[in-house]
Amino acid sequence: MPPMDKHRVIFDCDPGVDDAISLLTAMASPEAIEILAITTVGGNVPLETVTRNACALRSFAGRRDVRVFAGCPRPLVKPPVFADHVHGEAGLGAGTLAPCDLPAETRHGVDVIIETLRGAPDASVTLVPTGPLTNIAVALVKEPNIARAVREIVLMGGAHREGGNITASAEFNMSVDPHAAHVVFESGCPIVAVGLDATYQMRMTPARMERLAAMGSAAGHFVHAMLEHVNAIYADLYGAQGCALHDPCTVGYLLAPRLFETLPCRIDVETASPLTAGHTAVDFHARTGRPENARWVTRLDADALFALILERLARL
Amino acid sequence: MPPMDKHRVIFDCDPGVDDAISLLTAMASPEAIEILAITTVGGNVPLETVTRNACALRSFAGRRDVRVFAGCPRPLVKPPVFADHVHGEAGLGAGTLAPCDLPAETRHGVDVIIETLRGAPDASVTLVPTGPLTNIAVALVKEPNIARAVREIVLMGGAHREGGNITASAEFNMSVDPHAAHVVFESGCPIVAVGLDATYQMRMTPARMERLAAMGSAAGHFVHAMLEHVNAIYADLYGAQGCALHDPCTVGYLLAPRLFETLPCRIDVETASPLTAGHTAVDFHARTGRPENARWVTRLDADALFALILERLARL
Amino acid sequence: MPPMDKHRVIFDCDPGVDDAISLLTAMASPEAIEILAITTVGGNVPLETVTRNACALRSFAGRRDVRVFAGCPRPLVKPPVFADHVHGEAGLGAGTLAPCDLPAETRHGVDVIIETLRGAPDASVTLVPTGPLTNIAVALVKEPNIARAVREIVLMGGAHREGGNITASAEFNMSVDPHAAHVVFESGCPIVAVGLDATYQMRMTPARMERLAAMGSAAGHFVHAMLEHVNAIYADLYGAQGCALHDPCTVGYLLAPRLFETLPCRIDVETASPLTAGHTAVDFHARTGRPENARWVTRLDADALFALILERLARL
Amino acid sequence: MPPMDKHRVIFDCDPGVDDAISLLTAMASPEAIEILAITTVGGNVPLETVTRNACALRSFAGRRDVRVFAGCPRPLVKPPVFADHVHGEAGLGAGTLAPCDLPAETRHGVDVIIETLRGAPDASVTLVPTGPLTNIAVALVKEPNIARAVREIVLMGGAHREGGNITASAEFNMSVDPHAAHVVFESGCPIVAVGLDATYQMRMTPARMERLAAMGSAAGHFVHAMLEHVNAIYADLYGAQGCALHDPCTVGYLLAPRLFETLPCRIDVETASPLTAGHTAVDFHARTGRPENARWVTRLDADALFALILERLARL
Repeated sequence: MPPMDKHRVIFDCDPGVDDAISLLTAMASPEAIEILAITTVGGNVPLETVTRNACALRSFAGRRDVRVFAGCPRPLVKPPVFADHVHGEAGLGAGTLAPCDLPAETRHGVDVIIETLRGAPDASVTLVPTGPLTNIAVALVKEPNIARAVREIVLMGGAHREGGNITASAEFNMSVDPHAAHVVFESGCPIVAVGLDATYQMRMTPARMERLAAMGSAAGHFVHAMLEHVNAIYADLYGAQGCALHDPCTVGYLLAPRLFETLPCRIDVETASPLTAGHTAVDFHARTGRPENARWVTRLDADALFALILERLARL
Repeated sequence: MPPMDKHRVIFDCDPGVDDAISLLTAMASPEAIEILAITTVGGNVPLETVTRNACALRSFAGRRDVRVFAGCPRPLVKPPVFADHVHGEAGLGAGTLAPCDLPAETRHGVDVIIETLRGAPDASVTLVPTGPLTNIAVALVKEPNIARAVREIVLMGGAHREGGNITASAEFNMSVDPHAAHVVFESGCPIVAVGLDATYQMRMTPARMERLAAMGSAAGHFVHAMLEHVNAIYADLYGAQGCALHDPCTVGYLLAPRLFETLPCRIDVETASPLTAGHTAVDFHARTGRPENARWVTRLDADALFALILERLARL
Repeated sequence: MPPMDKHRVIFDCDPGVDDAISLLTAMASPEAIEILAITTVGGNVPLETVTRNACALRSFAGRRDVRVFAGCPRPLVKPPVFADHVHGEAGLGAGTLAPCDLPAETRHGVDVIIETLRGAPDASVTLVPTGPLTNIAVALVKEPNIARAVREIVLMGGAHREGGNITASAEFNMSVDPHAAHVVFESGCPIVAVGLDATYQMRMTPARMERLAAMGSAAGHFVHAMLEHVNAIYADLYGAQGCALHDPCTVGYLLAPRLFETLPCRIDVETASPLTAGHTAVDFHARTGRPENARWVTRLDADALFALILERLARL
Repeated sequence: MPPMDKHRVIFDCDPGVDDAISLLTAMASPEAIEILAITTVGGNVPLETVTRNACALRSFAGRRDVRVFAGCPRPLVKPPVFADHVHGEAGLGAGTLAPCDLPAETRHGVDVIIETLRGAPDASVTLVPTGPLTNIAVALVKEPNIARAVREIVLMGGAHREGGNITASAEFNMSVDPHAAHVVFESGCPIVAVGLDATYQMRMTPARMERLAAMGSAAGHFVHAMLEHVNAIYADLYGAQGCALHDPCTVGYLLAPRLFETLPCRIDVETASPLTAGHTAVDFHARTGRPENARWVTRLDADALFALILERLARL
């Protein structure tokens, strides 16, 4: 694959167990993904924690070349909501990492997104947000014309055929900052939305957990420890199916889009009602009359995707 | 089965192709269902049309003993929306019936509901609404204590794992009168909600259409003609799967509840937001902290249900 | 004035201190107002209480010919909210009446409204609602074509230049049932809205309280006792200005419209947002592009109006 | 007055006719107001135009030391709405200025706000926003702890006893970016809200227009030309009262707070409903139970305020 075909990517994330696996997979794929920056956002756990985790993850992955920038600590309009009941107070479940020896740089994540896009050719940079969309939205409000440089936004968020996972109707990332999600879906950027309909197909079953444990490496051990924590918490919801591996599906999509089926659609995000805030209205039939603004992942090949992730983790 | 076990039922409906099949199935089941009244409501087509259809259907079924009462011509708060693009201007697709020789009675459907319930023992009357919930809601607003006489409300409406069928997020009956639906779900009456998650499992496939045609009876011919019209309209949505047989699932539930799997849940209906109005937030995990107020049909045995409906239509 | 010019009126109310004064004023004006019915609605205090008060008031006024009918005990969509902290548990402040010796008739207030209008010539009946608009809205939903018989709806409700009196943005009657208000303002009936902008000009100052006390009659004593209670409660809000005499302004408008200045406008009622529910958006400048649907009372001649009310109370 | 008592101010604005007068008044008051920055925001007219105007104004005022920074071109969540029908395409009515010979600096207005506050002592900087609150809100989302350095936000916006000026219920600045306003009112910063209730008391009557014309200076001529344009447009609304001088009231408050009466209150901004978006619910009676977050200007001494503004304009 010639270098010009590499994805040039900003990962905007809130690690978080599944963000962590997503970042490790991406950092283990330098032949396909050039990481322009990791920007962090308050989400699964507070900003300071996710930023510390992002820094520790790059050291763990031997990627001290990757730059980390802290972004917004709170959503655009609503007060923050965290998910430490799932990800643990430190955000990585039962996984532990050596303390971060290289701190985040001082520029603000939002401005790194803006400056990176401002200096880039049209349609050349991919954004991969796996947390609340606050940073991307603030960047678009500060300087809307950066949208021209976005090649694609491959985001984890939303729910259509699956109900929500934080309220009955909304997925966590959309629910935490529905206004930011609205701004992003209105931006005109090409969007691939990897929602719960897709990620619930990628479960950490006992068989898959065993394969992680069998890796015998530090990476296998770390990822297993993180997921064991989440599986224990979700046991009553998912049983032997295991928890869903949400965020790594976005990196999987970058690496092997052939494993994913998508449908073009219009996605509007509910911002007005407390009952349904963050609900993604995914319309495949142009019922609203508004133009299509995204592709929605309807299916993925879970076995092939998991094999791909394992293969990348094995590189670490 | 002793007579005391008969369901004593008010059918509140807007026939409408699938309402028509629902009513025929019910009127062909006198051993199990005592029809206290048919009340009509503006929904699939305007009130005058659905009332005329209800009257014609009882004559067609040889059930001139069944009384029909016209209810509300418009929703509680919103302006009316019809679905004549699906059901045809006359409401019965390509089906035709002899003109109604026995008109509806003059009392208002809402008052028939109130008076029937007021005079009934506690928990003794089943309501089966298959249109917008306007009549039931107006009855509950006029005289809230009628709720005590309701044994169960078995309604067709809502969507959870399936997206909506009128907007991306809402099913038609809920969307047309979300405020009425809110009143009903807040009423404290036991509710079984047969939504799109269930009814989309009951498709009019070519095989089933053939079995209808093969009946050779007037009823088989009439129902086939109605559904052929709807199938043609929905061909691009459902392909060879055929359209869903929504409303008859409610009568099927009365006749053979063993064919249905349900889960207890909290259902709240969106009334505030234009984007998601009529969306049913179905919560199986008590996330809202509000008490359970319904059972949601998650699965049905489509083959057995269709066989049951066929058997009843064969009686006509 | 020839009899044909009499107002033929249904009073739809929730007495309540100011409703009581309104009814007494109307019942003391038989030369100008023919009372077709008093219908009651849950509002200031629960339905049973307001109905008992309406019955007692007609006896007190020597008007046993006036018929009283109980209407809806709860709002169209929202749960009920009462104002017994203002009107007292019995609804008449410190006023007491002989127990009602003639109970309300059994027909439902909503149906009395419908039947009265159904049998009336076009534009012949005036509705005077001084509580939440539930009854009128339910009547319009049950049978929308009754609107043709309405000459005018002269209602107490709403706030524009004055903030609300129950929330920062909404007047009590609108706030208790904003959905009903929406239905009424969308009905196409001619509407005169007597909101807080007008009624706050009609204060029970010490001078006016003295004039009531000086009447020396049972009516004067009763009305004084009621208002003294409300004045005491509102002392910190209104000081020596005294409480506002809301509902009697509607009857004053019937009797002496020359005392009122009105402006044509578009009124839309907020139903969607918890923060502003019941807020009346009063638009004099056609900003919405929707047609005018009401006249808003901007000024009234408080001295002349109070003199008129006193004169009528003196007849009792 | 010792220097320590000077207001250290960031003016965040969208000139705009009244913003222009506000800035001129402030730039003519160096003994009382130290201008840390002028930041601009899309509002009355697009960002590029308001920024050009801000630059031209500082030259006109002989204040090339004042730095100007362009901020956000669009609101936080909603699409932009402009008021060029009032302010003219160039934003200054019929006023004209020499072209801006000193362009805006390149840093983003939001970041200038953040950096200024980050480096300042607690409670030391006053923000004076006279346009939509987008810049302030984005700054608070990017770095919430800057709030500690805010001494006071003296903003022009909102309406309580006066209806709105863009919709029936909302003032322009609040309506253009209600979400930003929500963020600001939730920020915990001390706020003085100068809304339409106050600014409608400061009218450009014929007498005051004459005094402007009589100044005989370039400043008098320029301001007169701008206001004549707006007065002509608002003639049917305000008649001989003249248009309101909104934004200069904020600078007036800085210079002479004794001319203003304020009341402590809770202000919540409507963000959810299209009908009332941007409405300010101003609660003086703690009805919501939420703590006070602002002072609302209820009265101002218009003659004294106008004299003050004239005196400052005469310095230019």
